[in-house]
Amino acid sequence: MSVDLLVKKIKEKGNPSVAGLDPKLDYIPAYIREKAYAEHGKNLNGAAAAIWEFNKGLIDALCDVVPAVKPQSAFYEMYGLPGEAALHKTIEYAKEKGLYVILDVKRNDIGSTAEAYSKAYLGKTDIEGGLISPCDVDCVTVNPYLGTDGVMPFVEDCKKYDKAIFALVKTSNPSSGELQDLDLNGKKIFEIVAGKVNEWNAGTIGESGYGAVGAVVGATYPEQAKILRGIMPKSYFLVPGYGAQGGGAKGVLPCFNADGLGAVVNSSRAIMCAYKKGDWRDEQFAEAARAEAVRMREDICAVL
Amino acid sequence: MSVDLLVKKIKEKGNPSVAGLDPKLDYIPAYIREKAYAEHGKNLNGAAAAIWEFNKGLIDALCDVVPAVKPQSAFYEMYGLPGEAALHKTIEYAKEKGLYVILDVKRNDIGSTAEAYSKAYLGKTDIEGGLISPCDVDCVTVNPYLGTDGVMPFVEDCKKYDKAIFALVKTSNPSSGELQDLDLNGKKIFEIVAGKVNEWNAGTIGESGYGAVGAVVGATYPEQAKILRGIMPKSYFLVPGYGAQGGGAKGVLPCFNADGLGAVVNSSRAIMCAYKKGDWRDEQFAEAARAEAVRMREDICAVL
Repeated sequence: MSVDLLVKKIKEKGNPSVAGLDPKLDYIPAYIREKAYAEHGKNLNGAAAAIWEFNKGLIDALCDVVPAVKPQSAFYEMYGLPGEAALHKTIEYAKEKGLYVILDVKRNDIGSTAEAYSKAYLGKTDIEGGLISPCDVDCVTVNPYLGTDGVMPFVEDCKKYDKAIFALVKTSNPSSGELQDLDLNGKKIFEIVAGKVNEWNAGTIGESGYGAVGAVVGATYPEQAKILRGIMPKSYFLVPGYGAQGGGAKGVLPCFNADGLGAVVNSSRAIMCAYKKGDWRDEQFAEAARAEAVRMREDICAVL
Repeated sequence: MSVDLLVKKIKEKGNPSVAGLDPKLDYIPAYIREKAYAEHGKNLNGAAAAIWEFNKGLIDALCDVVPAVKPQSAFYEMYGLPGEAALHKTIEYAKEKGLYVILDVKRNDIGSTAEAYSKAYLGKTDIEGGLISPCDVDCVTVNPYLGTDGVMPFVEDCKKYDKAIFALVKTSNPSSGELQDLDLNGKKIFEIVAGKVNEWNAGTIGESGYGAVGAVVGATYPEQAKILRGIMPKSYFLVPGYGAQGGGAKGVLPCFNADGLGAVVNSSRAIMCAYKKGDWRDEQFAEAARAEAVRMREDICAVL
């Protein structure tokens, strides 16, 4: 009922980072795409086959460097049912390889519908008394706009099935401030949401000292990260915006606690497309991804 | 690039309501479930087969009464890949039957990922220059917590492919107020979000006088609906909370404009489970659903 498993894997690898698996087609080397189209056609099936091949190579190369992967659901949903099937295969394979899987779905809805989403990814679906996992991941991202009764069904499943969630608090995009930075008598919306996250997290604290309800806090806003660290001392932060989005190792530092824990930093494009920089050949995409993941680990660990 | 198609269908049917398709297993008559399990097993495939059979019966019975259906993605995702396939079949069948399809997915993310979500449901996915619709619906729901750059990719596809969206403004659940009702110098968060919706909607207004960017406004808060109607005069409202959630026809009235247009009211459980009330037999589930949809139409039209 906590994020202990993630913390354990972070300590084992000495690496508080997560590799995003956002397989846009133009991230995938041409030779993989061509092979997939030759077998399945230039269609959703061909694209999904290319995605799976690419992901498998990345997971094989990264699984002893990073503790976790974060598939972004949108980049599978955009390839329809074959894309969804590639996502499921990717999740199963990543777990087989010992990786902690954070599925970035940002789901949200009212009570009974939030329950259904939670069953889809964290809990189990009841079919006439038999319990089945439709898509078993370790952790999902959720959007908090609907308030406590939209989030608690996920928290209940975290307790029941030893899972975790990250709720959006301060996102890394340019217009995140429109709503999240609004000021209520000196307190910003993201601080109020952070207070809620801290409440939701209470009662889920594990051996690591951290609970099941974490927060998404963009690396692009380090000043705000410092404030948020104080409001949610026992929540893990999922930190997007390192690398490709412009945040560097110094930018992510305020997301960590003094114990060097408390945050896991995501990088997607910089790892997936590492082979496009420097002297790598396309066939070395996995090796290049691994080199970038190692470089990122050193970069972050140097400032901790 | 607007909601004109929905307005046309509402006028044709003389009915501003939408039937929610949230097929929880215990909504589905036992004889349908048993037949599906006998053929496919008591597993995700069996559940998905039952859902499809149920939905098909509902769509056949409702398609000349209601202008639109609203499948809730969570209740398909919770049955894994077979559930997703049942959702796709349901969407295609509803469109064949002339229904406007609002897919309730409440998706949200930053720019390029929001683009991917939009391609998944409103736009088209580019596979080496060939454009493919992964799951073609008329309209989706989106969550606005990330601000303008999380919503505009959807709006762009609305313009390009003649689609529409409903952004969450004031949801119908009990704790919706925690964040949405916070007061900034006399202006509530949901009013500020409504102002954004009105901005996003400008430039998408069609012949009907309404634009592509609508708002989800819960029937459970009629006082707030009145205020919101004023802030977003050219946005359609998607109104949950009628019937099962407690709101009645009077509760939804403030969501409409003086022209009797401007809102589409959702009912899910009351229609899907109508056969469980009164003297219906299980085999009459579709007939009962139709009777409830007619009753709801009369109930709402009586106050307009």
